[in-house]
Amino acid sequence: MAQTDVKGDRSLRPHEQRDPDLYVRIVERNKDGIIVSGAKVHTTQSIAANEIIFIPTRNMTEKDADYSVAFAIPANTRGLKLISRPMKGVESALKDPSFIMGRRNVENETLTILDNVFVPWERVFLAGEWQFAGAMAVMFPTYHRFTAISYRAAMADLMIGLAKLLAEANGVDNKSHIRRDIVNLIRYKETLRASAIAAAYEAQKDNNTGIVVPNIIMTNIGKLLANTEYTNAIQNLVDVAGGLAATVPTLQDFENPEIRGYLHKYLVGKDTPALERAKYFMLLKELLSSFGALFTTAMIHAEGSIEASYIELYRSYKYDGSKKLAKYAAGLEDTL
Amino acid sequence: MAQTDVKGDRSLRPHEQRDPDLYVRIVERNKDGIIVSGAKVHTTQSIAANEIIFIPTRNMTEKDADYSVAFAIPANTRGLKLISRPMKGVESALKDPSFIMGRRNVENETLTILDNVFVPWERVFLAGEWQFAGAMAVMFPTYHRFTAISYRAAMADLMIGLAKLLAEANGVDNKSHIRRDIVNLIRYKETLRASAIAAAYEAQKDNNTGIVVPNIIMTNIGKLLANTEYTNAIQNLVDVAGGLAATVPTLQDFENPEIRGYLHKYLVGKDTPALERAKYFMLLKELLSSFGALFTTAMIHAEGSIEASYIELYRSYKYDGSKKLAKYAAGLEDTL
Amino acid sequence: MAQTDVKGDRSLRPHEQRDPDLYVRIVERNKDGIIVSGAKVHTTQSIAANEIIFIPTRNMTEKDADYSVAFAIPANTRGLKLISRPMKGVESALKDPSFIMGRRNVENETLTILDNVFVPWERVFLAGEWQFAGAMAVMFPTYHRFTAISYRAAMADLMIGLAKLLAEANGVDNKSHIRRDIVNLIRYKETLRASAIAAAYEAQKDNNTGIVVPNIIMTNIGKLLANTEYTNAIQNLVDVAGGLAATVPTLQDFENPEIRGYLHKYLVGKDTPALERAKYFMLLKELLSSFGALFTTAMIHAEGSIEASYIELYRSYKYDGSKKLAKYAAGLEDTL
Amino acid sequence: MAQTDVKGDRSLRPHEQRDPDLYVRIVERNKDGIIVSGAKVHTTQSIAANEIIFIPTRNMTEKDADYSVAFAIPANTRGLKLISRPMKGVESALKDPSFIMGRRNVENETLTILDNVFVPWERVFLAGEWQFAGAMAVMFPTYHRFTAISYRAAMADLMIGLAKLLAEANGVDNKSHIRRDIVNLIRYKETLRASAIAAAYEAQKDNNTGIVVPNIIMTNIGKLLANTEYTNAIQNLVDVAGGLAATVPTLQDFENPEIRGYLHKYLVGKDTPALERAKYFMLLKELLSSFGALFTTAMIHAEGSIEASYIELYRSYKYDGSKKLAKYAAGLEDTL
Repeated sequence: MAQTDVKGDRSLRPHEQRDPDLYVRIVERNKDGIIVSGAKVHTTQSIAANEIIFIPTRNMTEKDADYSVAFAIPANTRGLKLISRPMKGVESALKDPSFIMGRRNVENETLTILDNVFVPWERVFLAGEWQFAGAMAVMFPTYHRFTAISYRAAMADLMIGLAKLLAEANGVDNKSHIRRDIVNLIRYKETLRASAIAAAYEAQKDNNTGIVVPNIIMTNIGKLLANTEYTNAIQNLVDVAGGLAATVPTLQDFENPEIRGYLHKYLVGKDTPALERAKYFMLLKELLSSFGALFTTAMIHAEGSIEASYIELYRSYKYDGSKKLAKYAAGLEDTL
Repeated sequence: MAQTDVKGDRSLRPHEQRDPDLYVRIVERNKDGIIVSGAKVHTTQSIAANEIIFIPTRNMTEKDADYSVAFAIPANTRGLKLISRPMKGVESALKDPSFIMGRRNVENETLTILDNVFVPWERVFLAGEWQFAGAMAVMFPTYHRFTAISYRAAMADLMIGLAKLLAEANGVDNKSHIRRDIVNLIRYKETLRASAIAAAYEAQKDNNTGIVVPNIIMTNIGKLLANTEYTNAIQNLVDVAGGLAATVPTLQDFENPEIRGYLHKYLVGKDTPALERAKYFMLLKELLSSFGALFTTAMIHAEGSIEASYIELYRSYKYDGSKKLAKYAAGLEDTL
Repeated sequence: MAQTDVKGDRSLRPHEQRDPDLYVRIVERNKDGIIVSGAKVHTTQSIAANEIIFIPTRNMTEKDADYSVAFAIPANTRGLKLISRPMKGVESALKDPSFIMGRRNVENETLTILDNVFVPWERVFLAGEWQFAGAMAVMFPTYHRFTAISYRAAMADLMIGLAKLLAEANGVDNKSHIRRDIVNLIRYKETLRASAIAAAYEAQKDNNTGIVVPNIIMTNIGKLLANTEYTNAIQNLVDVAGGLAATVPTLQDFENPEIRGYLHKYLVGKDTPALERAKYFMLLKELLSSFGALFTTAMIHAEGSIEASYIELYRSYKYDGSKKLAKYAAGLEDTL
Repeated sequence: MAQTDVKGDRSLRPHEQRDPDLYVRIVERNKDGIIVSGAKVHTTQSIAANEIIFIPTRNMTEKDADYSVAFAIPANTRGLKLISRPMKGVESALKDPSFIMGRRNVENETLTILDNVFVPWERVFLAGEWQFAGAMAVMFPTYHRFTAISYRAAMADLMIGLAKLLAEANGVDNKSHIRRDIVNLIRYKETLRASAIAAAYEAQKDNNTGIVVPNIIMTNIGKLLANTEYTNAIQNLVDVAGGLAATVPTLQDFENPEIRGYLHKYLVGKDTPALERAKYFMLLKELLSSFGALFTTAMIHAEGSIEASYIELYRSYKYDGSKKLAKYAAGLEDTL
């Protein structure tokens, strides 16, 4: 799913940009289909997909009609270019046994270029109907954010486990401030899970199509919490761990006969051998460094920014009941 | 339900206190029943109850056996004294038309004294079985906290309505920082509601009794959010409102023929008559002043303190799955 | 000093309001002076002043020229009305011995009306020179905010003392979460004090007049901290105190021969007689209730709102050095 | 300066550890000097030092007398081993032109081993005088934390510059939420600077030695702010930047003739060429990934943990004035 346009100067609408291609657009229409140009960023796992779906990134005005375009094309379509980001740290980590997580299942993102790509009419969903661009732009994120609050709870579970193991290995498991940190991680995870449960429980069914949509308020509440509290969770985790998160020796050092004796002797924890404890720190180091840019950015921006959730919540919330309650409490209405 | 003992020096256990009565205790046992002395604080709505139930406030050790006591007695039992707190601001507000909310349905709390009260055996639930005191002390709060996350969502709804009406009356409804404040109130309410839904959805059934208990993790997560985020919600609400929350003239001023003309002219808002706008500010003033001590304290302490939720969450959370995940990610286990 | 206009619909400029008097304005000019009308809110301690000074509340455009007006008049000028706010809780507290702080030195605010008031030219500072309205509107707040970060540190000192006394009286002085609360209060106070010291240390001297102005960045940093962190400080204080902040019996109860025995027995703390401990709770109750609307609102809005400090800091900060550093670090400039 | 012992099980004192070497200790005393063993972690820049100074990491009891040891030795002393941490990401970045900051001036930390090292008496400062271990352990951090609040303000300056350049390049410089983010970065920097100024301004002179010590309260307040607010600052910076912080193409891609045309066309910003804008994102990516583990951990732990500042502030603050003020306000004392 390719949605986010490159956008150029974000203070301008699509048709106002200096270069008309800074949002994906229809360059030409003919009896067989349309020809499109432009570029999308942050297209996740596109290199493993057979089909790439393109949808608008925002609502459109009449002047942006040529930018109101949605379609699906095979990944090997002529003119479609996937510029894959070699995730620096992760790539080098492939050869480094200290980095375990990064060895497999690593995410990949592309800058996705459409260089005068032809799309036949049977694969076009939207072509100029600017009134529907906004609805299409919002519909996908609701599902996407619902997946976010689900997978992020799983990520938070990893953080809880790592924090608990480190606290035990450090022998600080019963310290009040360490317990607070760990409960804050539990809180991070369980608020996401609670919002996911509530979003599913209060899902809305579309009567025309029978499609069930996750509750938009609960989904965005969970998303907002996930985005704004992630850096706090990182602080909790690093606070539990201590400085070895930065300075833990490498796995190669543990194999070096000259120094491994020192490492096994001095990095020992409470009821925890040095190498086991070191591996917990290596995992944390990996989360903070090789994966740092990806995780931190993704937790704040992926599936929509903080501001996007604020905007969505402000406009979707139904204020009538709340206002009625306040008017009653203020003595302006006699009944509730 | 009378649970919280007066506690004296909180660093000491019940039997260690200078005065043995600082936790409710059995003074004497005889063939007909027990005689109890002591005092409970914060007993909500006891003056409207027919029966008062007393339960322990904490876990007990063998030496605290006489403090491991639970029973129910009629409110007019000899030796039972309810020292009712006249809620100062609220009481005076009864005569003041500016204070609307406080005129009815006002909560009342008592200091509840047991002065050598006799309780017949058929009304005694616990008398010395110290091993069960802790379980009894924890059981009630889980239900109590489940009510908390429910009623507080309703209170938050009032705050949302009041904030929205004030923002519209001030003509600042479309300002970015005002929208953030209002969404933060929505977030406060909906996270409580999400945790209540999840606590009910994942309720646990006791197989022996068939009793259904709200999920303890979800209940305490909601409670923790309710306690720690309330003062932020107050900041959001006051930030939207502006300084008239403190300096709004009284309703009597609006009836004073010499000055009411000025008030109707100068306190007008956007599409909002001065008196309507002033009433919103009067309601906010009431929330912050007459109700201030009650609401602020209750939102931080009622149904258990912040620390109580931290302790409960730390000990109730099941860490096994989280640890297994972290060990797998650290390369210490091969399968998930 | 009367600065804040009533403003009506805040999304409109002065000259756009439905009623032309919603910002103080020049109604008429003649050879002897000007005639002004309008109203200012939140005029602190005006009832104790001999002279009231009026200045603009914001920058002005050419069309707002009649609103670009500043002058000083005696408090007994014809047409000047001070509508004093009887601070409800505080006023009733004057007769209640439980409320100590409110018995003296209580602040008073007025709604300050100008009903066709004549101001002779020798008392007019600004009359139509709209280009200077903004500078005048900003100049006073810098001094005003400098006083704010000073007096608020003193208020925070009271909160620290009260928290420490309550922690000791409750016997929880050595609990980790209580110590955190108290240190957070110390942090609140000392960050204000640090910003006040730095604002004075880096004060800017105006070369034309020799007037020394507190450093505008440091002053607004301190102000922003004071506004945004006050409700957290309240949470810290109430968290230390416990539920008696709401439910402490009154001083009259302590004088009632029927019940005072119970109170002296049961409200005792660690090495602290019941009445002394109760008085700490009464002070806290007073801060949260009678003074609640005043203190909470003032800490968030007085001397300028949170948003006002954000706007001032964003436009006053000198970004050149920061940008140069970032360009060097990004490899876009070779020298620092 | 080598201070932090490896500590093993942190819930045990030095003499209680399973392996007696888990804190640096005196193994033997003779007429010429002492023989010491043990290990210190996080020894910054030791590989560039001529002399390494060792001091205790904590206060000691009589049973820990052999651990109460301080001395200075040349870096090439027999038995002293510096196990240097190759900072993974940074190391590989040396060969990668996309990583600019990491090419020079990179910090290095060692695990510092003492394997039966002989120290002559003239280089020994403390050898068994356990009463002074605590004072020595605390003295250094006060200076060290004073440097921390100074250098971290400079780091925050880099973050401000980068955020402002990214906001301008993205064309979102005037958005309310972006301005808030940037002001929050300014707030982070300026509160550190204010505490540094105040710590110097209120420095304390030791009368015996004439040595001037930075004010301990102000230093630790600044340190506490620096530690607890860093992850918020990262959130502010990433929120301004957007998703390219994770997915920006590499510099090699900009040199690849097949795709560089697309990059120059599509990554263009507002009045900012694509390559310049990409370099800002590369710098941010470097901060978040290669430097991620170092920076995040150091900002939370270096020069002492969050809890260390809480403990120091709680015990160093003088409560007398604050308590007197609270007693006066509670009506328990008649004069201030």
